[in-house]
Amino acid sequence: MSGYAAVLRHVEAELAAGRLTVGAQLPAERRLAEDLGVSRPTVREAIRVLQALGVVRSGVGSGPDAGTTVIADPAGGIAAALRLHLATRRLPMADLVATRALIEGAAVRAAARAPGHPDLDLAEDLLARMDEPGIDADTYHQLDADFHVALTRAAGNAVNTAVMTALRDAIHHTVLHAVASLPDWPRTAARLRREHRAVLRAVRAGDGERAAALVVRHIEGFHREWTRRVSPG
Amino acid sequence: MSGYAAVLRHVEAELAAGRLTVGAQLPAERRLAEDLGVSRPTVREAIRVLQALGVVRSGVGSGPDAGTTVIADPAGGIAAALRLHLATRRLPMADLVATRALIEGAAVRAAARAPGHPDLDLAEDLLARMDEPGIDADTYHQLDADFHVALTRAAGNAVNTAVMTALRDAIHHTVLHAVASLPDWPRTAARLRREHRAVLRAVRAGDGERAAALVVRHIEGFHREWTRRVSPG
Repeated sequence: MSGYAAVLRHVEAELAAGRLTVGAQLPAERRLAEDLGVSRPTVREAIRVLQALGVVRSGVGSGPDAGTTVIADPAGGIAAALRLHLATRRLPMADLVATRALIEGAAVRAAARAPGHPDLDLAEDLLARMDEPGIDADTYHQLDADFHVALTRAAGNAVNTAVMTALRDAIHHTVLHAVASLPDWPRTAARLRREHRAVLRAVRAGDGERAAALVVRHIEGFHREWTRRVSPG
Repeated sequence: MSGYAAVLRHVEAELAAGRLTVGAQLPAERRLAEDLGVSRPTVREAIRVLQALGVVRSGVGSGPDAGTTVIADPAGGIAAALRLHLATRRLPMADLVATRALIEGAAVRAAARAPGHPDLDLAEDLLARMDEPGIDADTYHQLDADFHVALTRAAGNAVNTAVMTALRDAIHHTVLHAVASLPDWPRTAARLRREHRAVLRAVRAGDGERAAALVVRHIEGFHREWTRRVSPG
């Protein structure tokens, strides 16, 4: 096992044993290097990997928050992997969209069984903000992404939320780019907003089947619309 | 943007542009450092991240394969993130199992629409190997994991296959550990084998609904059995 892998293994074991928890600081680089008998650059390699996987965040400066803090951003880690593999073309965009539709369909079906969940109130607020006149596409898409995450989170499965957030993040820039070329963005946005309202209404009404059908149609429909703009033919 | 992030961004852009493809070698460390104006340790940090995300594999020695090769192992990258976040306890095991059941249920439903798929022949072979008398738990579990991956791959969605493989890999060691403490492993294994056959038979018969119900029951049932052994109460 190479040095940086030994550091990763050590951190994983400390997390699993509960000796290292979210919010705590990782021991200093020098200390880790001494304890594990590896060089400081090797420790830094492992820390970069942990950063990429959403397990730590490195502070700046020399204050009390300057160290490397344990965080829990599984979606960030999964999104990093998905984005790079979209780039290698081994994960087709259509498959990403299908997986997202599967997870969100299941999520709204489950959310409809707890229609009073606070994340649904948040979803409602986000829809109101998307209605603001003159909203630009960037802001709209951030709110849109947040809306879908809130819906999924209301279903209570942290893995589904992380995977769905990662799928959404991985294609965020592609979507923004594609949307910029849509012939009539305001009209598209108006349709998307109506669809969002219908999905949330079905969840609130406890009609999981209808909510699932609507959210799948919403995701697949928008995908068909923007991929027509980025792929030839 | 810090130096290693610039290297990652560069590699992602090269992949997206098709100038760097799976199977090709990454430029030498020294060359990347010069081109991007960063230090060699910084390049090495980025390469470790790419390794962890399943995008490159580093060779050893000084032969023609000694460099860093672009690969496509999205499941490896996603599994690394999942495993560490299981360790941070922000991704509960039960949610992982539920996501797996969701994806595999959808996969066998889809696979039943193409019951002559070559991956289903592979699944058949794996079942035969799991039947060999005196098979140890380690070997059994590897074949079992391969069987589930083959079933999922037969459905043709690369993202579902990557996520499902990652979910399976992330809990592999936990499962092996738990199984070692089961009171009657041969009896459990016999039941799992029967369940596998029933799932595959339903897929081959084109009965997607039945296959989905069976695979979900199989995954959830085994999870209930082995979690009883690892968690108190």
